[in-house]
Amino acid sequence: MTTIGIGVIGMGWMGQVHSRSYSMVSQRFPDSDLNARLVICSDNVEERAQKAQKMLGFEQSTTRWQDVIEHPDVQIVNIATPNSLHVEIVKAAAEAGKHIFCEKPVGRIPKETSQIEAIAREAGVLTFVGFNYRWSPMVMHAKKLIAEGKLGDLTQFRGRFFSMYGSDPMGLLSWRFDKNISGYGVLGDIMAHVMDMALFLTGPVKRVVSNSHTFIPERPKPIPGKGTHYSVGQPDDPKGPVTNEDYVGALVEFENGVRGSVEVSRTIFGPKNQFGFEINGTKGAMNWDFERMNELQLYLPTGDGYHDGFIRLVSGDQYPYHGNFNPGEGSGLGYEDMKVIEAYHFLKSVAEGEQTQPGFREVLDVAEVHDAMVRSWDSGTWEDVTSIAID
Amino acid sequence: MTTIGIGVIGMGWMGQVHSRSYSMVSQRFPDSDLNARLVICSDNVEERAQKAQKMLGFEQSTTRWQDVIEHPDVQIVNIATPNSLHVEIVKAAAEAGKHIFCEKPVGRIPKETSQIEAIAREAGVLTFVGFNYRWSPMVMHAKKLIAEGKLGDLTQFRGRFFSMYGSDPMGLLSWRFDKNISGYGVLGDIMAHVMDMALFLTGPVKRVVSNSHTFIPERPKPIPGKGTHYSVGQPDDPKGPVTNEDYVGALVEFENGVRGSVEVSRTIFGPKNQFGFEINGTKGAMNWDFERMNELQLYLPTGDGYHDGFIRLVSGDQYPYHGNFNPGEGSGLGYEDMKVIEAYHFLKSVAEGEQTQPGFREVLDVAEVHDAMVRSWDSGTWEDVTSIAID
Amino acid sequence: MTTIGIGVIGMGWMGQVHSRSYSMVSQRFPDSDLNARLVICSDNVEERAQKAQKMLGFEQSTTRWQDVIEHPDVQIVNIATPNSLHVEIVKAAAEAGKHIFCEKPVGRIPKETSQIEAIAREAGVLTFVGFNYRWSPMVMHAKKLIAEGKLGDLTQFRGRFFSMYGSDPMGLLSWRFDKNISGYGVLGDIMAHVMDMALFLTGPVKRVVSNSHTFIPERPKPIPGKGTHYSVGQPDDPKGPVTNEDYVGALVEFENGVRGSVEVSRTIFGPKNQFGFEINGTKGAMNWDFERMNELQLYLPTGDGYHDGFIRLVSGDQYPYHGNFNPGEGSGLGYEDMKVIEAYHFLKSVAEGEQTQPGFREVLDVAEVHDAMVRSWDSGTWEDVTSIAID
Amino acid sequence: MTTIGIGVIGMGWMGQVHSRSYSMVSQRFPDSDLNARLVICSDNVEERAQKAQKMLGFEQSTTRWQDVIEHPDVQIVNIATPNSLHVEIVKAAAEAGKHIFCEKPVGRIPKETSQIEAIAREAGVLTFVGFNYRWSPMVMHAKKLIAEGKLGDLTQFRGRFFSMYGSDPMGLLSWRFDKNISGYGVLGDIMAHVMDMALFLTGPVKRVVSNSHTFIPERPKPIPGKGTHYSVGQPDDPKGPVTNEDYVGALVEFENGVRGSVEVSRTIFGPKNQFGFEINGTKGAMNWDFERMNELQLYLPTGDGYHDGFIRLVSGDQYPYHGNFNPGEGSGLGYEDMKVIEAYHFLKSVAEGEQTQPGFREVLDVAEVHDAMVRSWDSGTWEDVTSIAID
Repeated sequence: MTTIGIGVIGMGWMGQVHSRSYSMVSQRFPDSDLNARLVICSDNVEERAQKAQKMLGFEQSTTRWQDVIEHPDVQIVNIATPNSLHVEIVKAAAEAGKHIFCEKPVGRIPKETSQIEAIAREAGVLTFVGFNYRWSPMVMHAKKLIAEGKLGDLTQFRGRFFSMYGSDPMGLLSWRFDKNISGYGVLGDIMAHVMDMALFLTGPVKRVVSNSHTFIPERPKPIPGKGTHYSVGQPDDPKGPVTNEDYVGALVEFENGVRGSVEVSRTIFGPKNQFGFEINGTKGAMNWDFERMNELQLYLPTGDGYHDGFIRLVSGDQYPYHGNFNPGEGSGLGYEDMKVIEAYHFLKSVAEGEQTQPGFREVLDVAEVHDAMVRSWDSGTWEDVTSIAID
Repeated sequence: MTTIGIGVIGMGWMGQVHSRSYSMVSQRFPDSDLNARLVICSDNVEERAQKAQKMLGFEQSTTRWQDVIEHPDVQIVNIATPNSLHVEIVKAAAEAGKHIFCEKPVGRIPKETSQIEAIAREAGVLTFVGFNYRWSPMVMHAKKLIAEGKLGDLTQFRGRFFSMYGSDPMGLLSWRFDKNISGYGVLGDIMAHVMDMALFLTGPVKRVVSNSHTFIPERPKPIPGKGTHYSVGQPDDPKGPVTNEDYVGALVEFENGVRGSVEVSRTIFGPKNQFGFEINGTKGAMNWDFERMNELQLYLPTGDGYHDGFIRLVSGDQYPYHGNFNPGEGSGLGYEDMKVIEAYHFLKSVAEGEQTQPGFREVLDVAEVHDAMVRSWDSGTWEDVTSIAID
Repeated sequence: MTTIGIGVIGMGWMGQVHSRSYSMVSQRFPDSDLNARLVICSDNVEERAQKAQKMLGFEQSTTRWQDVIEHPDVQIVNIATPNSLHVEIVKAAAEAGKHIFCEKPVGRIPKETSQIEAIAREAGVLTFVGFNYRWSPMVMHAKKLIAEGKLGDLTQFRGRFFSMYGSDPMGLLSWRFDKNISGYGVLGDIMAHVMDMALFLTGPVKRVVSNSHTFIPERPKPIPGKGTHYSVGQPDDPKGPVTNEDYVGALVEFENGVRGSVEVSRTIFGPKNQFGFEINGTKGAMNWDFERMNELQLYLPTGDGYHDGFIRLVSGDQYPYHGNFNPGEGSGLGYEDMKVIEAYHFLKSVAEGEQTQPGFREVLDVAEVHDAMVRSWDSGTWEDVTSIAID
Repeated sequence: MTTIGIGVIGMGWMGQVHSRSYSMVSQRFPDSDLNARLVICSDNVEERAQKAQKMLGFEQSTTRWQDVIEHPDVQIVNIATPNSLHVEIVKAAAEAGKHIFCEKPVGRIPKETSQIEAIAREAGVLTFVGFNYRWSPMVMHAKKLIAEGKLGDLTQFRGRFFSMYGSDPMGLLSWRFDKNISGYGVLGDIMAHVMDMALFLTGPVKRVVSNSHTFIPERPKPIPGKGTHYSVGQPDDPKGPVTNEDYVGALVEFENGVRGSVEVSRTIFGPKNQFGFEINGTKGAMNWDFERMNELQLYLPTGDGYHDGFIRLVSGDQYPYHGNFNPGEGSGLGYEDMKVIEAYHFLKSVAEGEQTQPGFREVLDVAEVHDAMVRSWDSGTWEDVTSIAID
């Protein structure tokens, strides 16, 4: 059994998810002989660090993220802080030779992502990024079907991520709406997932034309000491400006000739967490939606014309990784199960000393498309996707 | 009872649908006291003209479309010919002072539509266009909900029309794939429906950026004397070029600030006749899809947060025009029922001598957006929607 | 062309539907060379008879149903009156040698149905019954798949018909709730459809056990001169007893060993007109629901285990009769289109002089199952389905 | 923090699930201050016991289940063995004063369940049963809506559990098909879940009429040393008899007047794990299906008639326990998350020394309905649900 020491920085919800996911790998992938040792966690709020330590079973906790990096038993530094801290922490971790897991979009803006990617690359450490939706068994199966040519040559891709988290104009001006802390708005937050899925399933993007909009330009300011993320203000509360975008749309042309559209919004009604794709080829098509992550709609014409329609596949242990969680068919996985599969892949990568995907190279691929989108917001024209990698 | 004389030109499927639809108005709208008299029909294939006469109950038939226009009892000239004949026929009908129903997109290209619109406008005749999807009871209800402000200020619009009629690369090179006869491809054929719906529900479009593509650039040539439309060739058959587009995508900005995307394709798998929209406002959202035309998905948050979700409305006699066809709830309407509602509105318009919508002005609105899209295909940039009306 | 003279008795909604449906046969089935001549219609309300004559194009109208039967040009007597008049009218029509279309359940109670069936049988006239749901293209396709053995040996059948027409306890005590006029409640009204579908798809029933219940035992009495069917009373209105059942449930064993359940209710919330079946065999399964009549869910395992799921078939012109209404795929049919297919089959039967299905023999098959159900309500045990035919 | 010692007997899939679920309580319910200590696990296959110990973190393992009961630090004995061992183990555990978690249906046949219930009752130990579907957040919400009267007085209940695990006639004759080991077939296996849900949501059952059937009466015998549960034989393999039922159907009358039906099958095609209910009252209705466990379909008429339809609720942190797993809305839970909620409730029960639900009393309630069903299989009549509790 290979045991890998884990240090987690930032013990909010996502830091907890990551910690728990590492712990679960030995149970969900018992044949892998991989084991995570939760060495140390940090949070600048001491109480949060201590609570997380106790709850999740870390050996130590700290308020200094540097302690995590410096700890000799930590092999993986897992970063779950606001985007604004990523550069500094990655730099320190890479210099210390630690392998790095970072949540997308890694940098607040594309250039920052390229800067971070270069730091890790030069240091030669292994990297991994939280594009967790890839790991849904039905998405993995979709990828497989494409790879096997079941859909023929791909022709069209449609992606969307619609969420309601910003729909209420009285929702507080949290860090998500602040460009200094988060960087771009829905571009980094949810378009990143759409673009990673597009690149994962369809291949490299050649060019894009895009627009963006902020539908709710100001929001009530949070009151210090109160919660922010999901809290709601009053109409008379003092307001501040939203400094990043609520909406991004784009037309996309891929290098292999596929055409399509991608669209994301955080100020929409109805979809709760509607991250989905529709992908079409010369021989068939598939649809998937995270709100029904345990299903895949598949269209494969049989030629007889009488029995052709979208087939509703229901997840089961014949699909990738499903059986690591539930036997048989029809007992669905949940959100965090995807994070466990994700954690497994990074532990495996570190155990084998081999860079795997999606690493910083893949998040840079996304950032390069984002960079073209942002240029298009200004130019109003199609923009080629070009390298923003730092030599 | 007001009886209105009808002449129909072109007795293919759509000409038959229109004829039958006029006939049904007196039964479906008995309180309107409107009655259609099927005076004369024409088709350049004599057998087809005669067969249609007999089947549909026209008093006369002819192979000369001019006979229809010249017939003194004909008040409405209904054009259901290929697009390439529209100019000439409309001109003759307008000069004869006849009211005109024409199938979309009216002109093969936007400029031809503006030319046709000007001819009718100058002649002062009433016009009507076959944007039939407007008349689905659930679309009419959607329009009403928007008008009543139930969705608040609109923010996003997504439209699509995906059909499989061109998916098979062995499908013959019919008139639909020939720019000389049809004009643009999916732009005129199905994007016209999407844009009319967008304009109908959301309002005028300010600017667009668009691309187009022909995924299947050549197809087997039809063999004279054999059927074309849905027929299929063999791999070794001689082929000819497809001269219009299979796919159009666009980002759209409306004058009222709404953002969105529209996308159409005839070379896709899965959707049979998937014409749908998703519309979002500051207070709610709605989705509709023609494949389930008797349903409307409605999201209207109640404020309590526990009972909010898309409501599946099922058509019934409380919604516009449904009760003219079926009583109660849950007995759905079919495709042609929409055409009957359409026919009713034009008969009413003619009976009252009042131009109604959608007439040539509305199809010109669509053509103006199409014109901007086509310019954008060349320019690669956002193009403002500008008037192409002829003074 | 064969022209058949039609007389319709009872010009409420259903009488109008039938009249219109006969008229449409020549258009929807032009190759059949069948033509209906609307000779005479009757209604005991003179205004209704005259209005229907004018609207639907009958040559004559009358307030005496006997006039319809006596008219020498009438070949088909179409009965669309309340159930309580069926015996008398069928008797007179049969004695006059007229062919008879009657709405289900034909008799108010099973014995009355057997009485009526015997009358027609002895007279040797052709009969037909309004089990219209059989004629939905996707149901016809389902029947074909079963006949071809695609589902293997059938094993389970589940049927239901849930409607909301009686859900409101303030809904008036209309004729539907009066056993003297209607006979049984949901048994005759909607279980008749479920059982016909069960017999049509699965075969004869061996035995049943059943219960029934009246959830709303009294309702406001209608006020003379006001409408009744869909009208609503006030809490203080005088009330009268509901004399037939709101709910019927049954377990069913078919002669071929199939097991299943059937359940109907008119006092339910949610389903508008949810008439559906789920049918299972040793090789596959199918589901259908009238609320989405243009779809069929089909499960046919492929053996590879990776692509098996319910296939959503969307109606199109490859399925029975769809192409008589709309070309291509995805343009759905509506409720009345099923009635046109129904009318076609009876016209064809009369033109050819051959009894077809479903005739009075088939409605008697249903009545025999109903008879066993009613016996089971009393006995509380399984009851064999036995012949109630009169020699 | 209260720490409770856990011993698990039977380390197949379900024993692992239970062990893991106890472990997760401290993370998922951190405010509860409950902590599970995995003391000892047993399996008669030594390798399996040791592997489970290591993987799940038990302090000890054994091949003697008696060791688990005798261990002084074990407070909860968790039984996850075949049904045939339940009596003996429960007896020993109860005599040792240990609290007991047992998987449903507890006894192989209803009488055995009553025997087991009496043993635990007399010993005064706390009990709990794995009716895990209760704990789905959307089911908990459904229960709440009923309790609040949102649906008015309940009128109809429909329950079903359809699974494909026995559909393949070449599926081996595993323990599930052997009455000596498992007891009844689908009655105990999946009807138990349906009936518990019925009792949980609707209340006590007054009487039932039921039938059962074995569609596949013999199956290939497993070959010693090879796996059994999901394995498949060859047509020429020696076969043995299936000694319990594949199918059960029943009509149900509840004490509060609710009518309905329940139906289960393991030899069906299409449904993977379709456990669902439809529940109707005088004011509304709800549908739920485990295949989409993160959704609830709710119908609550608003009175205006225009916006009434089934609302698709998507699970989120406003619903019971969802937020213990995922924040926000639309990030779904998986199968095992329900088991963690289940484990939490039993830990809490033990910590507080209070019997909670569902315990052995509730599984006896189910067994009493099962007993009536089985009597009805023989008698062919309605059978009252009567007490089978042992004084």
